[in-house]
Amino acid sequence: MTSIAPSPPIGKSNPIILELITYTREHFEKHDNLAVDDLLLHRKANQVNWVNLDGLENQDIIEKLQSHFSLHPLLIDDVLSDQRPKVEEFDDYLFLTLKMLHRLDSKTIEYEQISFVLGKDFLITFQEKEGDLFDGFRERIRLDQGRVRKKKADYLMYRLIDIIVENYYNVLDKIGEIMDDIEETVYENPSNKTFNRIQALKKELIFLRKALFPLRDALGKIVKGEFEFVHDENIRFYSDVYDHVIHIIDSLDTYKDLTSGLLDIHINAMNTRMNEVMKVLTVISTIFMPLTFIVGVYGMNFEYMPELHWRYGYFEVWGIMGVVVIGMLIFFRYKKWF
Amino acid sequence: MTSIAPSPPIGKSNPIILELITYTREHFEKHDNLAVDDLLLHRKANQVNWVNLDGLENQDIIEKLQSHFSLHPLLIDDVLSDQRPKVEEFDDYLFLTLKMLHRLDSKTIEYEQISFVLGKDFLITFQEKEGDLFDGFRERIRLDQGRVRKKKADYLMYRLIDIIVENYYNVLDKIGEIMDDIEETVYENPSNKTFNRIQALKKELIFLRKALFPLRDALGKIVKGEFEFVHDENIRFYSDVYDHVIHIIDSLDTYKDLTSGLLDIHINAMNTRMNEVMKVLTVISTIFMPLTFIVGVYGMNFEYMPELHWRYGYFEVWGIMGVVVIGMLIFFRYKKWF
Amino acid sequence: MTSIAPSPPIGKSNPIILELITYTREHFEKHDNLAVDDLLLHRKANQVNWVNLDGLENQDIIEKLQSHFSLHPLLIDDVLSDQRPKVEEFDDYLFLTLKMLHRLDSKTIEYEQISFVLGKDFLITFQEKEGDLFDGFRERIRLDQGRVRKKKADYLMYRLIDIIVENYYNVLDKIGEIMDDIEETVYENPSNKTFNRIQALKKELIFLRKALFPLRDALGKIVKGEFEFVHDENIRFYSDVYDHVIHIIDSLDTYKDLTSGLLDIHINAMNTRMNEVMKVLTVISTIFMPLTFIVGVYGMNFEYMPELHWRYGYFEVWGIMGVVVIGMLIFFRYKKWF
Amino acid sequence: MTSIAPSPPIGKSNPIILELITYTREHFEKHDNLAVDDLLLHRKANQVNWVNLDGLENQDIIEKLQSHFSLHPLLIDDVLSDQRPKVEEFDDYLFLTLKMLHRLDSKTIEYEQISFVLGKDFLITFQEKEGDLFDGFRERIRLDQGRVRKKKADYLMYRLIDIIVENYYNVLDKIGEIMDDIEETVYENPSNKTFNRIQALKKELIFLRKALFPLRDALGKIVKGEFEFVHDENIRFYSDVYDHVIHIIDSLDTYKDLTSGLLDIHINAMNTRMNEVMKVLTVISTIFMPLTFIVGVYGMNFEYMPELHWRYGYFEVWGIMGVVVIGMLIFFRYKKWF
Amino acid sequence: MTSIAPSPPIGKSNPIILELITYTREHFEKHDNLAVDDLLLHRKANQVNWVNLDGLENQDIIEKLQSHFSLHPLLIDDVLSDQRPKVEEFDDYLFLTLKMLHRLDSKTIEYEQISFVLGKDFLITFQEKEGDLFDGFRERIRLDQGRVRKKKADYLMYRLIDIIVENYYNVLDKIGEIMDDIEETVYENPSNKTFNRIQALKKELIFLRKALFPLRDALGKIVKGEFEFVHDENIRFYSDVYDHVIHIIDSLDTYKDLTSGLLDIHINAMNTRMNEVMKVLTVISTIFMPLTFIVGVYGMNFEYMPELHWRYGYFEVWGIMGVVVIGMLIFFRYKKWF
Repeated sequence: MTSIAPSPPIGKSNPIILELITYTREHFEKHDNLAVDDLLLHRKANQVNWVNLDGLENQDIIEKLQSHFSLHPLLIDDVLSDQRPKVEEFDDYLFLTLKMLHRLDSKTIEYEQISFVLGKDFLITFQEKEGDLFDGFRERIRLDQGRVRKKKADYLMYRLIDIIVENYYNVLDKIGEIMDDIEETVYENPSNKTFNRIQALKKELIFLRKALFPLRDALGKIVKGEFEFVHDENIRFYSDVYDHVIHIIDSLDTYKDLTSGLLDIHINAMNTRMNEVMKVLTVISTIFMPLTFIVGVYGMNFEYMPELHWRYGYFEVWGIMGVVVIGMLIFFRYKKWF
Repeated sequence: MTSIAPSPPIGKSNPIILELITYTREHFEKHDNLAVDDLLLHRKANQVNWVNLDGLENQDIIEKLQSHFSLHPLLIDDVLSDQRPKVEEFDDYLFLTLKMLHRLDSKTIEYEQISFVLGKDFLITFQEKEGDLFDGFRERIRLDQGRVRKKKADYLMYRLIDIIVENYYNVLDKIGEIMDDIEETVYENPSNKTFNRIQALKKELIFLRKALFPLRDALGKIVKGEFEFVHDENIRFYSDVYDHVIHIIDSLDTYKDLTSGLLDIHINAMNTRMNEVMKVLTVISTIFMPLTFIVGVYGMNFEYMPELHWRYGYFEVWGIMGVVVIGMLIFFRYKKWF
Repeated sequence: MTSIAPSPPIGKSNPIILELITYTREHFEKHDNLAVDDLLLHRKANQVNWVNLDGLENQDIIEKLQSHFSLHPLLIDDVLSDQRPKVEEFDDYLFLTLKMLHRLDSKTIEYEQISFVLGKDFLITFQEKEGDLFDGFRERIRLDQGRVRKKKADYLMYRLIDIIVENYYNVLDKIGEIMDDIEETVYENPSNKTFNRIQALKKELIFLRKALFPLRDALGKIVKGEFEFVHDENIRFYSDVYDHVIHIIDSLDTYKDLTSGLLDIHINAMNTRMNEVMKVLTVISTIFMPLTFIVGVYGMNFEYMPELHWRYGYFEVWGIMGVVVIGMLIFFRYKKWF
Repeated sequence: MTSIAPSPPIGKSNPIILELITYTREHFEKHDNLAVDDLLLHRKANQVNWVNLDGLENQDIIEKLQSHFSLHPLLIDDVLSDQRPKVEEFDDYLFLTLKMLHRLDSKTIEYEQISFVLGKDFLITFQEKEGDLFDGFRERIRLDQGRVRKKKADYLMYRLIDIIVENYYNVLDKIGEIMDDIEETVYENPSNKTFNRIQALKKELIFLRKALFPLRDALGKIVKGEFEFVHDENIRFYSDVYDHVIHIIDSLDTYKDLTSGLLDIHINAMNTRMNEVMKVLTVISTIFMPLTFIVGVYGMNFEYMPELHWRYGYFEVWGIMGVVVIGMLIFFRYKKWF
Repeated sequence: MTSIAPSPPIGKSNPIILELITYTREHFEKHDNLAVDDLLLHRKANQVNWVNLDGLENQDIIEKLQSHFSLHPLLIDDVLSDQRPKVEEFDDYLFLTLKMLHRLDSKTIEYEQISFVLGKDFLITFQEKEGDLFDGFRERIRLDQGRVRKKKADYLMYRLIDIIVENYYNVLDKIGEIMDDIEETVYENPSNKTFNRIQALKKELIFLRKALFPLRDALGKIVKGEFEFVHDENIRFYSDVYDHVIHIIDSLDTYKDLTSGLLDIHINAMNTRMNEVMKVLTVISTIFMPLTFIVGVYGMNFEYMPELHWRYGYFEVWGIMGVVVIGMLIFFRYKKWF
């Protein structure tokens, strides 16, 4: 559960999807369900060629893509193994890898690594699993909505990253809701379950931060204009994503601080309860111990105990015990115990 | 309550205010209650044109402003969504967004995002809601008080930011008062209520810091003279605001440290109380358990118990019990328990 | 008490002192008790002119100084309001503001803001209150002791700062003594009073650090030779003060760490005590509960209880109870409870 | 056990292994079991000469290597004593030292220092002990698998470092497993044993981080191209190892945060238990103290106690006691104690 | 004890030692027991002149050295007062001051300030007290062992610093031993004494770090080649000392982390004990309270209590009590309390 090492190999049963989208301002084509060699025949010069591969366990496809685009062996290693987000420039392309948050239900976040190879006229995206966040966007390209058809591959990459980062905000909102929910319960009902929820949230924040912090650095390099594969006119767009990532990290840090606060509240609630239990115990003991002593005195069997023969001795003892109880209650009131 | 995500969409009922103030040294005009197109007709070259928009839900106004001033789409996105404070230079204007603290009552601080677009001869301010801190200042412009009529739009922006930052000091003073108040009660009466007040304060400090930290960076960039839209002669003014922001952040950090101290004091007070409760319990138990034992002894029904037949047996038992109590008291005094 | 906002306006009753000292190698003059205009007539070109003002509530004096030395309005704002220490260069002078520690008694430190305006041939010092640390030094100037009469105004400023920083060391020594004192008591007598003293000390350290940290940055700028108003030959002197400030900050950090240690010691002592109390309770309960049970048994009124009729039954019960007590004591010894 | 000082001198019984591997694209030779002078005769110009020494206690071998390769005395000092990982350039070679993790069983990690001296045509590796991680790789060189025979000595060094760093991942996986294991037990069975396992893990993480942090800096210098002994074309490979080291450090930091979480969980579990124990005590006391008091009352020996003579007095007392118990249970249910 | 302020003035009784060693490759002279003027007559041009002064309270000697070597007054101030380690370049010499650890016994470390003034052909060392770590080294110079006679004064300074830093390692080893010792006892016997030892160790680490951190910066400046008084060929030696200092600081940080771990272990042990005590109390109370209640029941004096007249009533009560005890024991076993 805490494993940060490379994710387990994906089962063979997972379907592999390979598709090619080529477009210019006037033109749009989409190819899938083709063998890799056939697919690559459809690549067109002077167009944007987006090759998307879902599922990385087919050695053959990877090798053919590698030789077709002359990808560096270390790059392929990085695509196939678990990497921290990073950007790296090669002679003929820019390589960027980051984490996509996937199929989020109320309990778990699944991390999927997505890698981008950005060339002059192509963009390759490698995803670990079938299914992504881009379906709506593919449709927008086809229908020529927005700016994407007027722009080059670097803008396409920006849009995809932007979609992924927007999705982070959903996770953030979810965390915010969980946090509000915990905050409500922690004051009233500081159970172990609440504590474990806080711990789980904290763990989530640690992992999210781990995925986002290096992404900030990678995008920062692009924003500084270090790479020629991203045109100057599009750097402003990357700058926008970069701001979003910083904002998310900021929020994560804020959440982390708030989580510490929640833990403090939980601990305080626990201690308050303990105090209350102790007080009940002490109040009961302090009232009944003297009373039990008093009745014990008159349970003694001495031959000569004058009180035993008094007419109202029994009732006087009740009177004394009443005085003791009232005295104790005044003492507790003075101590502000209730 | 802990949501850091974009604030909820503002209800349609919220009135939208659009106004234009144009002025030079000799001249002052103010227009409001006009349709956006009519309003923009009053824009005058070679004057300072301040367009102020309160309420961002009217798509039409935004679009017309965007096309009139040729504002970048990403800029409009930033205006409309929740952003961390930042500054960004475009070809024809400088964009700055920050948080305004609004309608502060004793319990809650409301954050409102305000965005500035500073051009050669104009300043646009986008506010989320009606009502701002600038009414007094508008009057000062009209009456030609201070330097503002002698200066350009960059000085106008400085003045507005200065007013917002001055308002932060009010919040700071308020926090200082709350802090003093808590400090007084935490020593005497460490209730859960005090604890929750400390937690609420801590949360406030976290959010304030989050709003101010990036503002420092944004103003720092202006102070370094990175942007031509702020004239060199006015940088000293921005430098002054920048110093204030640093001072406020400093104070927030100090408050944060003091809050931790208050929490320590609260916890110590809780523990001290617990100790006291335990001592009472122990003192009572330690005194009455031996006494109850003694009277129990002489409640036994053995046929042959010589003490029972002694003339003063009963009174001697009282004597022994007196000795036990005094011994215990000396023991407790020695242990410095009271 | 925790207010970090600007200090309250100073009462009118506070006497205002304005004085001018002019000197060269051969010459020394001192003027006070004069109206501001008369005083400024005594300013001499090609000499060092030191104008010192104690008390800032006389608007008139401030304004006349401002116009005489053509001081920037923002500078006057900074002099009059609470500022973090900083240095700023203007066209005709250098502005430096810092905190002076004043009239320190064993409990409280009073912060007073002192501002310097250093020109070619003059130095103005603005102090909030009457009375300062410079009396001995004024005498040294008059008597021409040390180097000051041979040097310019920048050396004079260095000497004044040096005196203020030296005074910090006194505060540091005092804190060291308090710390030793607390350390002695915390081990033996961990009372709430000790805890509160530690908290008060911690608060003091937080405020001191807040006053010194920005001073380090300000002096650092002077040491780097950024300002022409401090001659290169005198930078080494500022470098010396700079080292002292770093040393003091270092010591404050060390004290902060030690304070945390003291708190840990206090908490440990509290817990140890709690443990001890609990042990006493447990020992008493564990010894007397079984005994009380035993004597209870023979207090029962069953018709047929053979032991009651035994000749030595009573004494045998005492024997059994002795065995129980000894067994318990052995158990406690084994548990190393005493 | 916590010693960070130089490791103890290695016993003389440890066998010393000295071997030389020379290779080019076409050629491969391996020499061992030779005296140092004889061995060095086999060194070949224009080939890659890899001298590997396991065991550093033979003064003679070291000295002969030193004079043959004219190694700097300080370099030999560094090889022989415990060093933090670092890289240093000399005139004729590059020196790099780092820690190898060795013979890892489930409890302990053994650190072994390995030093590299990289010249134009040679690589010397100094290891403290016999046995290393390179056996499989030697075989790969011999069989001319991979790229190593086509490359120079700097690539050889990269491959060796890469093998060492890959091995770090194994350690990381192991730690991940231990962590999962602890996490499962800490919720259910918070024994002291679990606590000690967490502490041991934390200690391990501290030492691992200490070994890896300076390695990052050292590799970072190589990646920046500071050293001519690593050819530009091979820097990308070092960059890859560098990324791995950063990833491992990231994971260590994440583990450290998770460990703190585990400690919090342990402490919370301890406190929860304590609370439970206290509740049991309080429930028992609160139920039986009043009951014992009641029966005590009717154990008194007063002559005139009317209830004693009532026909159903005894049963009525049982009734009263039943009411008390039920009342207490309702009270506890209300307090949500069970 | 926690004083970080300047050390107290050294008593007059302390003997003052002044000595001069001059040497070249061929020549060696040592002079001591001479008046300062006579001694300085022996200074030889074109040789290395090492003037060593132990004890700083003789004003006369200091002044004569000052005028002979034309030392800056601020430098003399720094020599005489407590300084954080630093390096500073003057026109004719380099000034370096650092802390020497002295006469270490098992409990306390004594800090002594040593200052170096390095000129072209001389090195002055100022020590606060008689006795140093250099005796063996003086003999090595005399006997012309090692490289020192072949080198200049900057190498001499390196050797002295190296000896001082090597001595830090001894302190580090000692701390390592103490740490191991504490670790063994803290698990078994978490007494207050152990706690205090941990606190003392932590304090020591804080002070050591304070002495070493600025030393790192000072040496770093030398290593960067900022000063001409250290020849380029000798910078590698300083670089070696620099690495040692970084290694020591690393180890101190590791020790600090381990110390926190020890504190956690101590606190956990304390809590475990507390838990154990509470369990004993609860077990005893839970067993004997019901029993005492039962025997109380049959101690009542009601006229009509049928059980009292049963033939085996007494024994049946014993039976019931046995069942209660066994039930309780099963309950505790189920709760895993023992």
